[in-house]
Amino acid sequence: MIIVMKARATENEINAVAKKIESLGLKPHLSKGVERTIIGAIGDERLIKQEQFEIIAGVENVIPILKPYKLVSKEFKSEPSIIKVHGVEIGGKEIVVMAGPCAVETEDQLINTAIKVKESGAKILRGGAFKPRTDPYAFQGLGEIGLKLLAKARDITGLAIVTEVMDTSEVEMVAEYSDILQIGARNMQNFKLLKKVGQTRRPVLLKRGLAATLKEFLMSAEYIMSEGNFDVILCERGIRTFVEYSRNTLDLNIVPVVKQLTHLPIIVDPSHGTGRYDLVEPMSKAAIAAGADGLMIEVHINPAEAVSDADQTLRPEKFDELMNNLRPLVNVMGRTL
Amino acid sequence: MIIVMKARATENEINAVAKKIESLGLKPHLSKGVERTIIGAIGDERLIKQEQFEIIAGVENVIPILKPYKLVSKEFKSEPSIIKVHGVEIGGKEIVVMAGPCAVETEDQLINTAIKVKESGAKILRGGAFKPRTDPYAFQGLGEIGLKLLAKARDITGLAIVTEVMDTSEVEMVAEYSDILQIGARNMQNFKLLKKVGQTRRPVLLKRGLAATLKEFLMSAEYIMSEGNFDVILCERGIRTFVEYSRNTLDLNIVPVVKQLTHLPIIVDPSHGTGRYDLVEPMSKAAIAAGADGLMIEVHINPAEAVSDADQTLRPEKFDELMNNLRPLVNVMGRTL
Amino acid sequence: MIIVMKARATENEINAVAKKIESLGLKPHLSKGVERTIIGAIGDERLIKQEQFEIIAGVENVIPILKPYKLVSKEFKSEPSIIKVHGVEIGGKEIVVMAGPCAVETEDQLINTAIKVKESGAKILRGGAFKPRTDPYAFQGLGEIGLKLLAKARDITGLAIVTEVMDTSEVEMVAEYSDILQIGARNMQNFKLLKKVGQTRRPVLLKRGLAATLKEFLMSAEYIMSEGNFDVILCERGIRTFVEYSRNTLDLNIVPVVKQLTHLPIIVDPSHGTGRYDLVEPMSKAAIAAGADGLMIEVHINPAEAVSDADQTLRPEKFDELMNNLRPLVNVMGRTL
Amino acid sequence: MIIVMKARATENEINAVAKKIESLGLKPHLSKGVERTIIGAIGDERLIKQEQFEIIAGVENVIPILKPYKLVSKEFKSEPSIIKVHGVEIGGKEIVVMAGPCAVETEDQLINTAIKVKESGAKILRGGAFKPRTDPYAFQGLGEIGLKLLAKARDITGLAIVTEVMDTSEVEMVAEYSDILQIGARNMQNFKLLKKVGQTRRPVLLKRGLAATLKEFLMSAEYIMSEGNFDVILCERGIRTFVEYSRNTLDLNIVPVVKQLTHLPIIVDPSHGTGRYDLVEPMSKAAIAAGADGLMIEVHINPAEAVSDADQTLRPEKFDELMNNLRPLVNVMGRTL
Repeated sequence: MIIVMKARATENEINAVAKKIESLGLKPHLSKGVERTIIGAIGDERLIKQEQFEIIAGVENVIPILKPYKLVSKEFKSEPSIIKVHGVEIGGKEIVVMAGPCAVETEDQLINTAIKVKESGAKILRGGAFKPRTDPYAFQGLGEIGLKLLAKARDITGLAIVTEVMDTSEVEMVAEYSDILQIGARNMQNFKLLKKVGQTRRPVLLKRGLAATLKEFLMSAEYIMSEGNFDVILCERGIRTFVEYSRNTLDLNIVPVVKQLTHLPIIVDPSHGTGRYDLVEPMSKAAIAAGADGLMIEVHINPAEAVSDADQTLRPEKFDELMNNLRPLVNVMGRTL
Repeated sequence: MIIVMKARATENEINAVAKKIESLGLKPHLSKGVERTIIGAIGDERLIKQEQFEIIAGVENVIPILKPYKLVSKEFKSEPSIIKVHGVEIGGKEIVVMAGPCAVETEDQLINTAIKVKESGAKILRGGAFKPRTDPYAFQGLGEIGLKLLAKARDITGLAIVTEVMDTSEVEMVAEYSDILQIGARNMQNFKLLKKVGQTRRPVLLKRGLAATLKEFLMSAEYIMSEGNFDVILCERGIRTFVEYSRNTLDLNIVPVVKQLTHLPIIVDPSHGTGRYDLVEPMSKAAIAAGADGLMIEVHINPAEAVSDADQTLRPEKFDELMNNLRPLVNVMGRTL
Repeated sequence: MIIVMKARATENEINAVAKKIESLGLKPHLSKGVERTIIGAIGDERLIKQEQFEIIAGVENVIPILKPYKLVSKEFKSEPSIIKVHGVEIGGKEIVVMAGPCAVETEDQLINTAIKVKESGAKILRGGAFKPRTDPYAFQGLGEIGLKLLAKARDITGLAIVTEVMDTSEVEMVAEYSDILQIGARNMQNFKLLKKVGQTRRPVLLKRGLAATLKEFLMSAEYIMSEGNFDVILCERGIRTFVEYSRNTLDLNIVPVVKQLTHLPIIVDPSHGTGRYDLVEPMSKAAIAAGADGLMIEVHINPAEAVSDADQTLRPEKFDELMNNLRPLVNVMGRTL
Repeated sequence: MIIVMKARATENEINAVAKKIESLGLKPHLSKGVERTIIGAIGDERLIKQEQFEIIAGVENVIPILKPYKLVSKEFKSEPSIIKVHGVEIGGKEIVVMAGPCAVETEDQLINTAIKVKESGAKILRGGAFKPRTDPYAFQGLGEIGLKLLAKARDITGLAIVTEVMDTSEVEMVAEYSDILQIGARNMQNFKLLKKVGQTRRPVLLKRGLAATLKEFLMSAEYIMSEGNFDVILCERGIRTFVEYSRNTLDLNIVPVVKQLTHLPIIVDPSHGTGRYDLVEPMSKAAIAAGADGLMIEVHINPAEAVSDADQTLRPEKFDELMNNLRPLVNVMGRTL
């Protein structure tokens, strides 16, 4: 940590900072410049807190040096993590596509959609049994009935299942049925929930919050891993900006940055990320070109009847076309689909 | 709801939309313009969903007319709601100040801070027993021990207590000790938690999420109220923007807008809202001038020792000075402190 | 235009709106709903202004229907525009790469960089003679000397030239030397400058402003076209968000949206868009996959000596590698490089 | 400047950085920590550029210490600057109110509005003769005719005049008629224009850009001052965020921060800052409470007839009421109106 003193900091103020550093078990290192003094704290930075220094008189600025996350970082594990689930490898050579309806509505809807996305090449079936809805009066999901339908769809198609868990009290139940536990964007910093899924042995798909910085996103992954569950899949799904032509701003820049800093796989959800079905194909291609390990795409046998997110949902035929259009690009990127 | 057709929409497409409207129990109303046709859906808009129309061929845009919230709105209840808690009225003539440490750390720290803020005129003691921390390795709060200390501080000082609840499994416990249940910014859309606190009879302080639109903020209040708990206090605490000189951007514009649209009280948290102790006073004044019903301010007997948020925390003397500096302004606004 | 009346609007208020519509030469069309009345203004919407209605008593909301831009839109011209400059076609089958240093510094630097980027496959040389710098004390560009060096580089390499023009007083001079006039992000709404370049016969590269909506971006293109210059090339170069890991947030979502709505070509600048040289390759690939017509990339023979933007600049060898890595992807997208 | 090396930086890489620092005339200062080495550059930081170090192998991060602006800073001039114009002092004890129509439309409109705002206590008349309009087909202002009308309004009322200048070619003309030159938000980084107004002897009102950081805002003021014109008045007028209930997000947090760092006066424009006439009064009060030195408010004798920005404009009676409502607050803040 580096403490920058104000231009007119007194000797006493500088000494106070130095003593504080020593009292915390580190060594102060003074650099007296032309205009101001800079004090380095040499030792294990994790022992001290930035804020303890920011309020000392004469301090202008405190600059941390170490990254705050550990288990997610490449310095902790240099090879990429490959998450294995139900015979599928996420983070390996394959671009893994997760597809299905926003919400599980009926057996017919789910099974028919599942069969279709399987035929087109999806490996994992998505579908919400518990739905986070902005509106308290809107359909909130089928709950356990929905989970049972997902399990049935898995039996029929062989697809693995990913579904959202919204509350600590439901983690156990969802983990019983689902192959992957999804943490939604609105719960990315629901720390109790992160810990709870960290205590299961199910892989976790962690969606980025609408206003999450990279640091916050990775720290939420760290929460899960710090409980012993290392099977975390990151998912970019759009951030909130001033932009008016897409519901969210899908931020593909994070894909190569995550690849650089962490060993975790990252997938992209262009359906939620843009909120527009007509942007799903170009942004799916862009995601793969940027280095994503997979895609999560909303598909419904009849979008006009969908109880939620109809405007970002593809019909099965459109999804099939998409998969076919992705294949040459996937090959060129040295991956498989 | 208004459906705007594309410039080249066919008769068939226009008819499909009209039929869809009829099938949902409303009446279509066509306006053929020079360039395009507009179709109004006359009837109870709540029966239909925007997305069902957005995907019909020939539709360019779907525009909802009704506000999605009901119980929070002034149309539902025209006089302002006054929330009574432990002898204090929030939303009435008084500017209610909630003050105290970010986290409950020790009995000494809490009781001494409580006595001081009470002396300066605070009416409610804040303090976290469960702390949402970005970092899994950081202090997470004392839990029930912290709640007991808060109750003790209430016994000693007579101050009411507000403290955060982070998980459905802890609502009952927190409600047992605390006078007001706080929902933190990161949990503003933790819908299960909103419902759960909606089932208690404790007033709820709902903090705005970092990227929450007004609609989302009010819909989260609606969640709580839809479960029967009408004692909701809104709290502006800063949004996330590109700005670099404050940790968040305290958005006072929302204060008069909330006053216009809803009957709920709204308070402002300049400590978290700016992240800078030196901005607490000017922004407290600005909040009151903008029409806020109260303030939430971080105070610690020794900020340099605080385990969190030290850089936005006032010492008791500074808080006392702040309260004195606010009084003339409060009077001019026709309120009391 | 649609005027939504408040729930309790009176007959008088409704009539006032209807009369106002008539007085402007359009026809009012009333739809009385269960809760509120909606009034359509039938006729040429361009004759009326939204704001004239927003302030009439009883009006809740005014919703424009027509798009505000005309010449840029696909409805005006349905086939894509191909801009021809110095033998290169922008907006056609070829992915056109513009490369070169941020600023023209010396003859050696420019000519050597130009030769290198030409060898690697760039078709247009970029380089600033007039530099918009945040800092008044920083290097502001060589001015006309820089323009002459650019012209010399064109003579030697055959590359076309694109360079920024910052002020109306310099348009003529820059147009004399440069093949394409660049309008920088900070000047995207410098309307006098837009008009002035619209009066030249040089193609214009219009960079998106840091906080520009799509509408504003297209309206700025409309400014140029409304003066008679139809050769406008749009350029996405990153928007300002809360994100901390890239200098700007390169927003590729705009690429397919522009393709849908307009006939203009759009290129992407991953160097400025991310501010990180290590993100240039993945985001270049993503841009092409999203449908961009070209790239603008900073290359310098010695980035460590560059007077600006060193951290986002590639060395010629890196640029050559990039071009080679892009080729298979470009082919798969059915384009050439 | 501080250069943080990567965890695995080699001795050679560290030496390369040290040599680079020396070659630029500063002294390197090494601090070898447990995990990484930090190198301070001791001497005049203005001689070196961050980017020169960011690209050296082994460097993780470069942290500047000195503030980039000089003339605007309190370290350069510790007492607040008071700008005198036409008998009015901006930045002194008085809260200076600038009021008038968005655009100068007709003699009647301007003179009548001017007389009214003068009666209510405004000291400066605002009104645009050159209007930056998003739409090329919209009214662009009366130009010199508008300037002449402004001068006439000054003759009649004694009010000083502030009006926008949009292009270098018009600075001289506008300076001839106007007492204060306004630089609009969209031109905040039109550096040529900043320099040009810096060469006049007219005070400059510099509006903050929609996406301007504090640093960029102050650097634009520095541009003007670096040309010798020290009479700069800053103006907060809203930033662009995701928020949907105000056209822009008026960011009052910047007011106390500017007061802390600079000697320049800062005023607030709640009309543009919120885009809603019903928010003008609460946000005017909040601005004064936050410490602003003045207000800029749109007033029009007949907002419904205004050619622009009608929805944020007050009638003279409303403005009069506003001024009366502000007075007690102004007094409590120890200022005059």
